[in-house]
Amino acid sequence: MKKISVLGSTGSIGTQTLDVIAMHPDSFQVDGLAAGTNTALLLEQVRRFNPRRVSVATKELADEIRSSLPSGIQLYSGNEGLVEVAAGGDAEIVVTAVMGSVGLQSTLAAIEAGKHIGLANKETLVTAGHLVTELANRKGVKLFPIDSEHSAIFQCLNGENLADIACITLTASGGSFRDFTRDQLKNVTVEDALRHPNWSMGAKITIDSATMVNKGLEVIEAHWLFGLPYEQVNVLLHPESIIHSYVEFRDSSIIAQLGNPDMRVPIQYALTYPDRWESPAQRLSLAEIGRLTFREMDYERFPALKLAMDCGKAGGTATTAFNAANEIAVARFLRHEIPFLRIEEIIAEVLHRHINEDNPNLEQIESCDKRVRELAATL
Amino acid sequence: MKKISVLGSTGSIGTQTLDVIAMHPDSFQVDGLAAGTNTALLLEQVRRFNPRRVSVATKELADEIRSSLPSGIQLYSGNEGLVEVAAGGDAEIVVTAVMGSVGLQSTLAAIEAGKHIGLANKETLVTAGHLVTELANRKGVKLFPIDSEHSAIFQCLNGENLADIACITLTASGGSFRDFTRDQLKNVTVEDALRHPNWSMGAKITIDSATMVNKGLEVIEAHWLFGLPYEQVNVLLHPESIIHSYVEFRDSSIIAQLGNPDMRVPIQYALTYPDRWESPAQRLSLAEIGRLTFREMDYERFPALKLAMDCGKAGGTATTAFNAANEIAVARFLRHEIPFLRIEEIIAEVLHRHINEDNPNLEQIESCDKRVRELAATL
Repeated sequence: MKKISVLGSTGSIGTQTLDVIAMHPDSFQVDGLAAGTNTALLLEQVRRFNPRRVSVATKELADEIRSSLPSGIQLYSGNEGLVEVAAGGDAEIVVTAVMGSVGLQSTLAAIEAGKHIGLANKETLVTAGHLVTELANRKGVKLFPIDSEHSAIFQCLNGENLADIACITLTASGGSFRDFTRDQLKNVTVEDALRHPNWSMGAKITIDSATMVNKGLEVIEAHWLFGLPYEQVNVLLHPESIIHSYVEFRDSSIIAQLGNPDMRVPIQYALTYPDRWESPAQRLSLAEIGRLTFREMDYERFPALKLAMDCGKAGGTATTAFNAANEIAVARFLRHEIPFLRIEEIIAEVLHRHINEDNPNLEQIESCDKRVRELAATL
Repeated sequence: MKKISVLGSTGSIGTQTLDVIAMHPDSFQVDGLAAGTNTALLLEQVRRFNPRRVSVATKELADEIRSSLPSGIQLYSGNEGLVEVAAGGDAEIVVTAVMGSVGLQSTLAAIEAGKHIGLANKETLVTAGHLVTELANRKGVKLFPIDSEHSAIFQCLNGENLADIACITLTASGGSFRDFTRDQLKNVTVEDALRHPNWSMGAKITIDSATMVNKGLEVIEAHWLFGLPYEQVNVLLHPESIIHSYVEFRDSSIIAQLGNPDMRVPIQYALTYPDRWESPAQRLSLAEIGRLTFREMDYERFPALKLAMDCGKAGGTATTAFNAANEIAVARFLRHEIPFLRIEEIIAEVLHRHINEDNPNLEQIESCDKRVRELAATL
């Protein structure tokens, strides 16, 4: 029986993680659930999975649901509650699917407590890859990527030596505006942007796909997850999103991972590694799909990707600044405050003013994050 | 220093194996070379690689070259010589690249002597898969496939559990007549058939690609190499031959191996497994290729593939009969004695008359092989 805690249990990755757990009731057991404000769904999850510890966003929400919880469940709230669910209890794996920088602290706490991580929180590696990977190495903790691209690379590296890697390639669908010129991008609307060609996701990540910021963040994550210099991390346009990513080895052999898009597959793999269990995900038929296409990534068409890679190479707090500037700019675009192309401009302006701090600690990261958000809101 | 013997050193796989060995002179050393009748090339190889044992097809050829060999080299000839190079000496790996059924006996001898096998001889597994895999298991000997499809599957299974395989898929280019109807096949010539769309190979295997017999033999080999029932071995038309083959696991995840066609890659992998070394093979650029296409295999268009799979399922000497009938029929087609479509008919007629023997020993296999060849020559 593998005990699992889920941080961000009511979000997209959180609910799918619980779907996977529910498929294997004899093998998985939920130890803790941390949610934000969706207490109705959390209570449903508590009834279904019977965790021992639960946390919600605030003390007020905790007080609201206390009487609805079965006895014997420990109830926490706020950041401390999140950390308690992450690091306390006896989960073997903690799935970190909370959004935003709040995920970092709880992930570090879980690693410190020796728990393996099912990593779905982007900020963790983007802003603090150096701290997280160093601590994980020291504690002998595994970081299992929950993300189709990184899970693909992770799967392709099964049984291989990292020293034999020539390079890895993350594939990119190209997002909602793949075939638009820069000129055509000038007047696109929020509604246009939210129509992703291959799947439906949250608004933020759909915009990040259209700007290619999402792929930029993935490149940074890949750098940390697989310990590769940026020169060995490539991006390729692959509109069908069937090849999720691939590894080229120094003997010129390429190993790729393919499938229909279904997040339950990488989630389950993170929980069952190195084994693979049955999954209800739809089987891929290449004959039915008929063809896969590929195009060189165009860094002039997608300048934010280039910016992300430059920040990655610069290291320090540059990636924190990139990420924070993007979050604010996307939120402003979604509120119709700025046009689509202004997202990239805001990121570029923030980075232009950014004074990089090498090897930052948590405090420096958080302070940079806060400063950039304030700045980006005014640009 | 890894010592290697090469059976069939003057053939296509043999010379490419020596190319690979020559690229890594500090790591590989040639222990033995067995050739057929191309003594000029063999002598050149002897001068270059300085083996300790050498064998040629006949005693007469041995006598011819004896005085040209440096002193200290042991010279053998005939089947016994082949077995001596395979099983004697202190090679760690024996690459079995001789053509035809003579490869089986020497492969079994090498396994018996505890040597790992770089397997490029088709007959070995097609006619005696049950004997070879049983002996290899008993002796703790590894069978490293040297063949782009099986090497691909072998690479995709790195670090995975065989029990987690849902199925494997061998890709097929479709051969010279991929887009011909059955009707158009009636009048194709030897010259038409020898124009393979993706690469140039020997005449026999080029015809086997056009009839899909080659893929049928590969399916049988895959069955034995990976211990999978035929229901779990699929074939997919993939004209570009870039995805060399792939594995689908029970979690629906697919791991594929890709690359430009270059036999030096699977050969080298067989010699360096589980490591990968630098290779001069041309790097694959998916962006440059632009697209990959796939089509369901058409078993009515390629009935010989269906016949091969049926023989595989039947087991016993059926696969020996299939292979022997095909060899004779292809030779007759290449001599312009029969039309192209007669190849399949001869195989079918042989199989129709074939009385299957279960779990045959070497003698039964050889006797079936001989009988079928005689019959196929008269049909």
